[in-house]
Amino acid sequence: MSRSLVIQVINPNTSEAMTQTIGQAAAQVAAPGTKIVAVCPSQGVPSIEGHFDEAIAAIGVLEQVKQGRAAGVDGHIIACFGDPGLLAARELARAPVIGIAEAAMHMATLVATRFSIVTTLPRTLIIARHLLQQYGFEHQCAALHAINLPVLALEDGSGLAQQKVREMCIQAKQQDGSGAIVLGCGGMADLARELTQELGIPVIDGVSAAVKMVESLVALGLSTSKHGDLDFPVTKPLSGMFSIFNE
Amino acid sequence: MSRSLVIQVINPNTSEAMTQTIGQAAAQVAAPGTKIVAVCPSQGVPSIEGHFDEAIAAIGVLEQVKQGRAAGVDGHIIACFGDPGLLAARELARAPVIGIAEAAMHMATLVATRFSIVTTLPRTLIIARHLLQQYGFEHQCAALHAINLPVLALEDGSGLAQQKVREMCIQAKQQDGSGAIVLGCGGMADLARELTQELGIPVIDGVSAAVKMVESLVALGLSTSKHGDLDFPVTKPLSGMFSIFNE
Amino acid sequence: MSRSLVIQVINPNTSEAMTQTIGQAAAQVAAPGTKIVAVCPSQGVPSIEGHFDEAIAAIGVLEQVKQGRAAGVDGHIIACFGDPGLLAARELARAPVIGIAEAAMHMATLVATRFSIVTTLPRTLIIARHLLQQYGFEHQCAALHAINLPVLALEDGSGLAQQKVREMCIQAKQQDGSGAIVLGCGGMADLARELTQELGIPVIDGVSAAVKMVESLVALGLSTSKHGDLDFPVTKPLSGMFSIFNE
Amino acid sequence: MSRSLVIQVINPNTSEAMTQTIGQAAAQVAAPGTKIVAVCPSQGVPSIEGHFDEAIAAIGVLEQVKQGRAAGVDGHIIACFGDPGLLAARELARAPVIGIAEAAMHMATLVATRFSIVTTLPRTLIIARHLLQQYGFEHQCAALHAINLPVLALEDGSGLAQQKVREMCIQAKQQDGSGAIVLGCGGMADLARELTQELGIPVIDGVSAAVKMVESLVALGLSTSKHGDLDFPVTKPLSGMFSIFNE
Amino acid sequence: MSRSLVIQVINPNTSEAMTQTIGQAAAQVAAPGTKIVAVCPSQGVPSIEGHFDEAIAAIGVLEQVKQGRAAGVDGHIIACFGDPGLLAARELARAPVIGIAEAAMHMATLVATRFSIVTTLPRTLIIARHLLQQYGFEHQCAALHAINLPVLALEDGSGLAQQKVREMCIQAKQQDGSGAIVLGCGGMADLARELTQELGIPVIDGVSAAVKMVESLVALGLSTSKHGDLDFPVTKPLSGMFSIFNE
Amino acid sequence: MSRSLVIQVINPNTSEAMTQTIGQAAAQVAAPGTKIVAVCPSQGVPSIEGHFDEAIAAIGVLEQVKQGRAAGVDGHIIACFGDPGLLAARELARAPVIGIAEAAMHMATLVATRFSIVTTLPRTLIIARHLLQQYGFEHQCAALHAINLPVLALEDGSGLAQQKVREMCIQAKQQDGSGAIVLGCGGMADLARELTQELGIPVIDGVSAAVKMVESLVALGLSTSKHGDLDFPVTKPLSGMFSIFNE
Repeated sequence: MSRSLVIQVINPNTSEAMTQTIGQAAAQVAAPGTKIVAVCPSQGVPSIEGHFDEAIAAIGVLEQVKQGRAAGVDGHIIACFGDPGLLAARELARAPVIGIAEAAMHMATLVATRFSIVTTLPRTLIIARHLLQQYGFEHQCAALHAINLPVLALEDGSGLAQQKVREMCIQAKQQDGSGAIVLGCGGMADLARELTQELGIPVIDGVSAAVKMVESLVALGLSTSKHGDLDFPVTKPLSGMFSIFNE
Repeated sequence: MSRSLVIQVINPNTSEAMTQTIGQAAAQVAAPGTKIVAVCPSQGVPSIEGHFDEAIAAIGVLEQVKQGRAAGVDGHIIACFGDPGLLAARELARAPVIGIAEAAMHMATLVATRFSIVTTLPRTLIIARHLLQQYGFEHQCAALHAINLPVLALEDGSGLAQQKVREMCIQAKQQDGSGAIVLGCGGMADLARELTQELGIPVIDGVSAAVKMVESLVALGLSTSKHGDLDFPVTKPLSGMFSIFNE
Repeated sequence: MSRSLVIQVINPNTSEAMTQTIGQAAAQVAAPGTKIVAVCPSQGVPSIEGHFDEAIAAIGVLEQVKQGRAAGVDGHIIACFGDPGLLAARELARAPVIGIAEAAMHMATLVATRFSIVTTLPRTLIIARHLLQQYGFEHQCAALHAINLPVLALEDGSGLAQQKVREMCIQAKQQDGSGAIVLGCGGMADLARELTQELGIPVIDGVSAAVKMVESLVALGLSTSKHGDLDFPVTKPLSGMFSIFNE
Repeated sequence: MSRSLVIQVINPNTSEAMTQTIGQAAAQVAAPGTKIVAVCPSQGVPSIEGHFDEAIAAIGVLEQVKQGRAAGVDGHIIACFGDPGLLAARELARAPVIGIAEAAMHMATLVATRFSIVTTLPRTLIIARHLLQQYGFEHQCAALHAINLPVLALEDGSGLAQQKVREMCIQAKQQDGSGAIVLGCGGMADLARELTQELGIPVIDGVSAAVKMVESLVALGLSTSKHGDLDFPVTKPLSGMFSIFNE
Repeated sequence: MSRSLVIQVINPNTSEAMTQTIGQAAAQVAAPGTKIVAVCPSQGVPSIEGHFDEAIAAIGVLEQVKQGRAAGVDGHIIACFGDPGLLAARELARAPVIGIAEAAMHMATLVATRFSIVTTLPRTLIIARHLLQQYGFEHQCAALHAINLPVLALEDGSGLAQQKVREMCIQAKQQDGSGAIVLGCGGMADLARELTQELGIPVIDGVSAAVKMVESLVALGLSTSKHGDLDFPVTKPLSGMFSIFNE
Repeated sequence: MSRSLVIQVINPNTSEAMTQTIGQAAAQVAAPGTKIVAVCPSQGVPSIEGHFDEAIAAIGVLEQVKQGRAAGVDGHIIACFGDPGLLAARELARAPVIGIAEAAMHMATLVATRFSIVTTLPRTLIIARHLLQQYGFEHQCAALHAINLPVLALEDGSGLAQQKVREMCIQAKQQDGSGAIVLGCGGMADLARELTQELGIPVIDGVSAAVKMVESLVALGLSTSKHGDLDFPVTKPLSGMFSIFNE
């Protein structure tokens, strides 16, 4: 009863390197019949490290969702830990849309009573805090940590950021009383499996988690409800650079 | 990279008919390589309609988890909407354990901003309320409804309970401002797909949702954290009828 | 110790008529030394009735904030009840930024123990719900109501929408046990004072409330903290249509 | 107007020594007319240190409640800090049922604005956390501590565990900003009065607290509501080892 | 080990009739060795129906607590459903202090999963709401009702208010899905036992509940913690009419 | 459209020095047409450092509100960080009433995602905690600190308390991850502007914040709702020293 499907993995920033990292992480866990199409906006912000960056990135996400929908993809993933534009994308899409913060947090609650988050810059912690509150997982998050390096340090080839993530995960395991760790950046997608092995606790990457969630929803015949507040956007003429969204 | 796996679906009550309904619902969504083994305790309670029934059923769940673990299954599902014995089972199991209430609620939050629950007897509503609070989904649940028929009415062949579920779902869609409906009983597992079609909104069955969640966790290389409070039970000699749990 | 100041009131949609309504409401309560500059994005969405519209509008808000900042305005108001782009705008701006939902809700808690919200389309209720949760005012909101007319019905000259708002306010006063009503749309800005008179309870418009809040912050020598997560966006080259945000 | 009554104190584990400790603590505070009957299940788990142990213990609790009910006792106490089987026992019993975690937490909120909890193994902290959330006392609990010794260390005669409890209570008093301490294990029941004296703050044992609560409910003519979700279990034939619960 | 003790029951309003009703209700459940001393302030407000009345009444409560403390009473009860001056009284007193709202709510959570409140004037509902939030019982309260008669109607001899309370309780039982009812006024203290009989569910009066709580705390050797924020008030000279509080 | 108005700033304690500090802080930010009248009760407590002090102070606040109302003031400010008597004062007053804790907390949420509180004695922290919960700002408060000096140390002329406040603010900025600091005592009103400059983050004084809030409400034509639970107190004869409140 399996079926072949296409999942569009949208890196909301414009970094090609990170798009590749994310795409590979997604492909590694995809089911045999699943094809991963990793994309990023042609225009936008090279990395997402705050609310301003997120607002810009949300447009790129929507642009890609529109293209993915036109191409008939079976699901969309927003591969930035702030889940920028998630509800807007759910309105626009016909297929399911999953954010990687959401995906990782959900998975974490299935394998541990409490989890820790390890992310990049301290200023992004507030975004994770707001998501925990909105998704309902505040009680399950024991602590949030930032390695204090920018997102793109994960792509500079030096391995320094990766090393800092590893150290922070070890520290979190020892100090937080958490049973699992959520990696708080799409750019960390390739670290989860190895850290899970090394630390002996679930270290969860949202990109791969989201792939399985999309596959799950499709297999269940479920998609975003179009009854109520996630219905397609009310049709009206958008102007200027946003006219790309007009049908 | 797919793999063949075995999922043990545990109906915590002793109804064979319901075990079959549940097993079929599970099999219908299982991936090609997934084998569903539907079981129920050899002893216990014929249906679960309150906290007392849940306490009894939890032992049956643990018994089955122990057997499933010995048989090397890749995941366990607790197929009763109260998720009886969930955290205890997570301690006992090596493989992931998912409850169907949990599974359905998680899925619902991915396709709607708010959902309604439709269950059997009014006295079980408090169990759902407590789970919503514990899992963090209180804000996402708009309303809870009971059809006021016992669980086994779903297996009496008359179709009356099924009809009541259908009517309640229609009413919930019209009145609650919800975008999705969660079916609050393992015995309703076969109704979801049809009601989703008829009502035009996601109507979610936890059994099938849980199958996909177990498959997802396995594919991600994730299982219950054995670091901390979900570690295997502290070894000590159990006495009397519980000596079956001694190694 | 009073000072002359300029407040930029940003209507996040592109409706000129609504921009005018909003600007007038703002001017009516502005202090003698305060100059109101009502603007709207040159491109975007004609009305905001969902998350997609909000994501588009947020860019328009940021564009205007950037221009306002360059022009040296003393404060910015985001005049749409969903407060689109609020935290992003706070990062970008040097002067204080206030959203009208936030402003109205804060004011309501100062004059009543519980308030009701009256807005336009039912699908926007979820946005208000999320804001109540994020701002911390869930307990103070007794009920939310929608008149079930689109935003621009407020500008069609027929008075029908205004009449529906009035009727809904009367009903809310009678049924909700609330002491005050918050008007949930920038386009209702001109109704508050009259309804306050007629109903004999505070009926609060966020536009005028926000004007007083900006004036207050300026007089107090307070502006958005640039220590921590609302600091100016990390500088990096934006590409394509977003290059307008490069310095 | 006093009356003579019998309170069944159920130690949910099978440790005779602990049953005695608990029974003595109960007897010490019982009113003149109150007879304490301390019991433990004939079969089960020797100590309770996790969710698995709790699930086993819940059956023992129910078995004893059934016997106590047959014997016509006036109230039941579940003397393990996780309150295993509490709601199930309330269904089964005719007389009031009180858990010692519940009892201690309630009492603590009557004598201090915030309290600390001192328990045995770290893995049991999650059980206390969940109870705080379910009972509504999260805001009143300032901190949770574990002495990191197993439950039965309290019965090994060395006094080491008792010494660790004492040290942890002193530390909690100094560091947590709490006005009272809740002892998080039935096996600590004999320490409360002495520590209250030594530390000069209320150190609360749930066993004795529960005795007074049962006496209070009886004196007030109150018992578990049989209207609604705590009504007697729906009658149906239990099978196998659970047939002991059939009438 | 029983002991003779004196409990001061403070009616915070100046109504002699209500003081008597309250005193009798207290005496009816007091243990053999317990002496009830029912008092009310010599000056203050004849009934308490809002925050202003409560502020006035709090002084009367404190005045009586000071006198009771001087007389060496073993506990104090604040017999108004808003628990006016509770934390202030805990600072001032050496013996335990219990409010009747607190007492009734605590007891209700021990016999039902959810309860309803029936009180006098609608304007006092907000006080009950705030207490539910502060005490942590929001989730356990299913609904609040007001009979829309002033407090003193309970003392006018017509029985009308009592009839309305009865009708409201019946309605609450049928509609709220609650297992118990809390009577929300000290003046209803004499109705609880009869309504419990008639309705077949626990109908709880806070006055008698508080008596048992004070007796319990005394028997347990517990009193308000004087370590931290409930310590005796910082000594300083009060002026004017408040000099009565100077030592 | 500006108007001349009179704001009564009530220092709830009887310290003349503090009344002056508070009055000056208020005057410094008042709009040109606003006249500040700083008052304190003629009788009461010299400083407010706990719940008992607050209960006494509340009467002084009400006395002053009554006088202010008779004098036709346009607004009342309760200048003690616990906001003693706030809801009672709102009942009694015709004009708006603002507490300084409330004012400072509201303002803080407009300029930072999270704030810290710096207050005087540790025992007052619980009052701030309760207000955060009641007002809905728990999630926005990152930490609370006490300098461990009594309130009147702020008026002893030594500058020691001021120095401690400064040091605590610096520490809070470095450690709490907060973007703003709320000063938790009316007696610190003169420190905010200077500390804002020195620390480079918003340091917020509630007295000045409250002045702007009252001015704002007046300009908006809003006052406390007299529909519902903040209506004028039910008229009844107060006795004894409270007869001053009889009309």
